Amino acid sequence: MADEENAYSFTTEATRHIELTGLGGEGLNLWRGGCLPEVTLAYECWGELSAGADNAILIFTGLSPSAHAASSPADPSPGWWEYMIGPGKAIDTERFFVVCANSLGGCYGSTGPGSIDPRTGRKYGAGFPDLTVEDIASSGYYLMRELGVEKLYAAVGSSMGGMSSIAYGMMYPGELSYLISISAATRALPLTIALRSLQREIIRSDPDWNDGQYSDERKPLSGMSLARKLGLVSYRAADEWNSKFDRSRLPPEKRSDKPFAHEFEIENYLEYNAQKFIHSFDPNSYLYLSRAMDWFDIAEHGDSVADGLARLDVERALVIGVTTDILFPLRQQREIASLMRDTGTDVEFVEIDSVNGHDAFLIDDAQFSPVVGKFLADSLPA
Amino acid sequence: MADEENAYSFTTEATRHIELTGLGGEGLNLWRGGCLPEVTLAYECWGELSAGADNAILIFTGLSPSAHAASSPADPSPGWWEYMIGPGKAIDTERFFVVCANSLGGCYGSTGPGSIDPRTGRKYGAGFPDLTVEDIASSGYYLMRELGVEKLYAAVGSSMGGMSSIAYGMMYPGELSYLISISAATRALPLTIALRSLQREIIRSDPDWNDGQYSDERKPLSGMSLARKLGLVSYRAADEWNSKFDRSRLPPEKRSDKPFAHEFEIENYLEYNAQKFIHSFDPNSYLYLSRAMDWFDIAEHGDSVADGLARLDVERALVIGVTTDILFPLRQQREIASLMRDTGTDVEFVEIDSVNGHDAFLIDDAQFSPVVGKFLADSLPA
Repeated sequence: MADEENAYSFTTEATRHIELTGLGGEGLNLWRGGCLPEVTLAYECWGELSAGADNAILIFTGLSPSAHAASSPADPSPGWWEYMIGPGKAIDTERFFVVCANSLGGCYGSTGPGSIDPRTGRKYGAGFPDLTVEDIASSGYYLMRELGVEKLYAAVGSSMGGMSSIAYGMMYPGELSYLISISAATRALPLTIALRSLQREIIRSDPDWNDGQYSDERKPLSGMSLARKLGLVSYRAADEWNSKFDRSRLPPEKRSDKPFAHEFEIENYLEYNAQKFIHSFDPNSYLYLSRAMDWFDIAEHGDSVADGLARLDVERALVIGVTTDILFPLRQQREIASLMRDTGTDVEFVEIDSVNGHDAFLIDDAQFSPVVGKFLADSLPA
Repeated sequence: MADEENAYSFTTEATRHIELTGLGGEGLNLWRGGCLPEVTLAYECWGELSAGADNAILIFTGLSPSAHAASSPADPSPGWWEYMIGPGKAIDTERFFVVCANSLGGCYGSTGPGSIDPRTGRKYGAGFPDLTVEDIASSGYYLMRELGVEKLYAAVGSSMGGMSSIAYGMMYPGELSYLISISAATRALPLTIALRSLQREIIRSDPDWNDGQYSDERKPLSGMSLARKLGLVSYRAADEWNSKFDRSRLPPEKRSDKPFAHEFEIENYLEYNAQKFIHSFDPNSYLYLSRAMDWFDIAEHGDSVADGLARLDVERALVIGVTTDILFPLRQQREIASLMRDTGTDVEFVEIDSVNGHDAFLIDDAQFSPVVGKFLADSLPA
């Protein structure tokens, strides 16, 4: 069942692939009207599902992570949320059955633009149907049913993953007990849309993008590198870089003699991280997932954002925002929390004062672990 | 004397061109060691120089403006700082002789990368020497001497222009009475360097840039458009766009059917503004002026930033910052003011709470005019 055609599959011993069934005759019907006849999700899991199947936590990812959120005996390499998930950690795998899937539309083993369309025998490419956060949420829903879970204990996510968690709660009211949304948004606003649209346009402007029909041998790597750098700039915060890089220069031997070549360490840092990324991420996945965030608007689930959030039916929600986040600003987190509260949800709102910007949830163990850990521990019967 | 070879010259009846003399045998010696054998500056002026030549104000521009800061009978079209400069306005042309030059390195009539190198008979292109904010300041200094001004009444500038004004004061201590710095910086910091470096890299990545040796027929317009959009994103602030654009969509007839084409009004706004810009601005000028801001560091004028600012010898300085500026944040303006004060300058610091971000000085007449107007009026003898 593995999506072996996908050039980016990160298949390790820990990665499982599952083809979703029970989708109905046509396959997965999508939020904006398209349909995917076959959906495979790559996922990893930690801990054991209880006999009553009532201890399952689903982690939704941001734009770029794989399913490898944490290490396991099968894959001991550190996961992207290693500090958060594990035995005795905030998301305690001794108590919970924890699942993380690579996003629908992604490129690490789940069905996405780099997958083969069974109807044509060719890659979807830019012919992949319109993808939304809601589709990511519903693919997670069907995944959990495949795994024998009728009602999720908690959905947890940051950034796009936070949007997906909220979408899950609105689309399947009563089928989720606890909701954790970190640095998400009720709806994308113009500055954020501009930053993401520009990343997509940079990729589309690379002649090697070729309207999405690039080959594995000739991908829009230059566009991907520039887009990733812009993404990174928007994920971090000024102060962190001030203390880390200040105005440090590259040593002469690391400089090129091309005109306007990099000379500051910050430029080198972005280059290094972009190069690491572009060879392991599918440009079309980037475009589809990036646009899904622009499209996300809770108001589509009712007459207004508040009306959409009124659909939630959870025991309790935790909403976390970061003071230095410029992409999903603190104010938007406060808005999520207060609208949830206004519409009847029991909400805990936590403001985290971190220098790490939007990416703080990936880095700031010391501040995030206690908040998430306490919320989940308090949720359990004494 | 006009730099007629420059394809971007905006020569109107109001634009004057002057070739700087008195530079010494080799021409204009530059801060980082190069030399320009001939320097022409395009400038406009308003008001009359007093008999004592003691009422001259020099306006330094940001990256992109021409010398046309305000209208005049010779060119009645509105200038880029129209609300600020004119009879009875904050910079009162009934009292002051006001001069604005197109920056050295620019493309609106002043010597820049698009000019002919007299030593080769060909355009400088990427062979233009290393350009710094200090060189822009010194070209302004020689311009004022050409115009018969020994001591400047005031230097005024915002953004790169603010840096240039401060540089003028440090390089020519005692030859400037009043200094106005708006949304400038003592030194570029990593986030700002990253944003500008990325704009330059986007231009350099356009195959039509051709290492700076592009022809007029084939310029890197795609790279320029993307770079300008990124610039615009960094010049404005989230709230302004929230109220102006929110999530408004383009009407269907304005959309392309290309994959991932623009669909939000904010995308259309950026596209419109980028298209207006790219046909009137020289890509190499963009690169040289952008890098000059990254290089700027007051600490190069002494052992430290404070030591550099201690060189100032003015009657009084006005430092203005804007609450929503993400590119030259308020904190940096406070730093400029407090270091000036610590090193013996009489400083007025004004924090302007505007939704217009870094560009507020171009837009927010209601808040900027009274502050600048009062500072200059107070400076005059009763």
